[in-house]
Amino acid sequence: MIVNKVLPRFFSHICDVPLSATDAAGVLYFGRLFDLCHSAYEAALRAGAKPLRAYLTGEIILPIVRCEAQFKQPIYCSDSLRIDLSLGDLKDSSFQIHYHLYGVTGGDLLCAIAMTHHVCIDRHSRQRSSLPPELVAMLTASI
Amino acid sequence: MIVNKVLPRFFSHICDVPLSATDAAGVLYFGRLFDLCHSAYEAALRAGAKPLRAYLTGEIILPIVRCEAQFKQPIYCSDSLRIDLSLGDLKDSSFQIHYHLYGVTGGDLLCAIAMTHHVCIDRHSRQRSSLPPELVAMLTASI
Amino acid sequence: MIVNKVLPRFFSHICDVPLSATDAAGVLYFGRLFDLCHSAYEAALRAGAKPLRAYLTGEIILPIVRCEAQFKQPIYCSDSLRIDLSLGDLKDSSFQIHYHLYGVTGGDLLCAIAMTHHVCIDRHSRQRSSLPPELVAMLTASI
Amino acid sequence: MIVNKVLPRFFSHICDVPLSATDAAGVLYFGRLFDLCHSAYEAALRAGAKPLRAYLTGEIILPIVRCEAQFKQPIYCSDSLRIDLSLGDLKDSSFQIHYHLYGVTGGDLLCAIAMTHHVCIDRHSRQRSSLPPELVAMLTASI
Repeated sequence: MIVNKVLPRFFSHICDVPLSATDAAGVLYFGRLFDLCHSAYEAALRAGAKPLRAYLTGEIILPIVRCEAQFKQPIYCSDSLRIDLSLGDLKDSSFQIHYHLYGVTGGDLLCAIAMTHHVCIDRHSRQRSSLPPELVAMLTASI
Repeated sequence: MIVNKVLPRFFSHICDVPLSATDAAGVLYFGRLFDLCHSAYEAALRAGAKPLRAYLTGEIILPIVRCEAQFKQPIYCSDSLRIDLSLGDLKDSSFQIHYHLYGVTGGDLLCAIAMTHHVCIDRHSRQRSSLPPELVAMLTASI
Repeated sequence: MIVNKVLPRFFSHICDVPLSATDAAGVLYFGRLFDLCHSAYEAALRAGAKPLRAYLTGEIILPIVRCEAQFKQPIYCSDSLRIDLSLGDLKDSSFQIHYHLYGVTGGDLLCAIAMTHHVCIDRHSRQRSSLPPELVAMLTASI
Repeated sequence: MIVNKVLPRFFSHICDVPLSATDAAGVLYFGRLFDLCHSAYEAALRAGAKPLRAYLTGEIILPIVRCEAQFKQPIYCSDSLRIDLSLGDLKDSSFQIHYHLYGVTGGDLLCAIAMTHHVCIDRHSRQRSSLPPELVAMLTASI
């Protein structure tokens, strides 16, 4: 389950919360948290492995089979967030990423945490496949 | 351009505005109007031609090359809308759909109008292709 | 955590997966699962309590503080899903809803499960508040 | 209507197309183009006027009453786009923004154009109101 302690991060991403991610309750729509986290993961891939598009058409696919989030503080339109990515469970054909989202205006405030669990599948055989080495390198780096 | 007069409709679809389509201004996020319209188009395809999924993998593709919308009344979370679809320009390899969105609580109130312009392309040659007959039949029906 | 056994449901909702909920991997974008679940919850509120909009402007608010999902089968554009809602933990000022999503074409196939955890807060004092009775009635009904 | 010639821009914004903005046809979901454009507008506001959140709670509101888009080239997940914003019609209580979206990998390629038309309304009287001066200054700057 979601870990509250701050793990060593392998990537950090800054984003502003767009109007399109909010809802009529006046805050972030809960499901859009995953869009923000996944965009941070895509930025990590671009910087440290390959752009996501390469994985959409390659030999292996990396579907998300589980995800979780906890909301600790309201997140508003135009808030600047820093999303720290850290590695959770890592196995031969799967990995988990933990996301810690901090409001960065006036000191770091932990607003939300999230987790995505990815498995690596051979596109053709549909069997589990080992994670590609550049992805393992990205996940096990630290900053 | 968008036509304000009410054309004969070929399909009508009822939907409730979900929280996920609203934004922190308290109303429908303008870009989500197209999601509502496209879902109505998908319901029309399912009822009168083939489910959209069939067109995602078939010989022809139907990309949208232009779209427009006008907003006339605020649209709120939980509003019940009726979306009337009518045919605009129809050519051998393209068509336009006009959408009239009415709030249906307490008498019809025109809230927004929209338009999508689709072209028909052969998936392999990338050349213009004639619209499939079941699609023309759906577009030229009237209710 | 997410419960795999099928609990007694208090509501059931049918929906078709729209193109707008899919991504370039060809299946449902994982974060959109929560949009589908929340729309089913909104349909339950409309049928058994009050439309969600009433709760957006009333004395209490019902923010989601935690959510989870597990994906068991790929979900495609135009798939027809049945979403069964059942009650998880129920306390004086919080509740959990479990969602079981079944593909309904050719026999029920469990595609995904999800959970949302809501707390009830007084809008003005920001303190925990008892759940409104019509909501408790809705959650504890069974069909 | 949408202008094809390149107007002097007042702001330019770089973004990468996230998976969440694509659909199962393998390209950008047409309605998400407006999310990308609006995020660029929000970045312009932040840099040259006030963050959008200030306008969500202030004396005036700036609803979009019309929008349009034309798609010229397919836009894929992980594409890097430059969005140039230029001023269209400017009146005492309304303005239009034109968006030119260029793929920036291997030379600028115009992928899409869009337009949003905003009106300025007094929140309380619901009457037209003059645009705030910092917004006019932002719109009439050039880079």
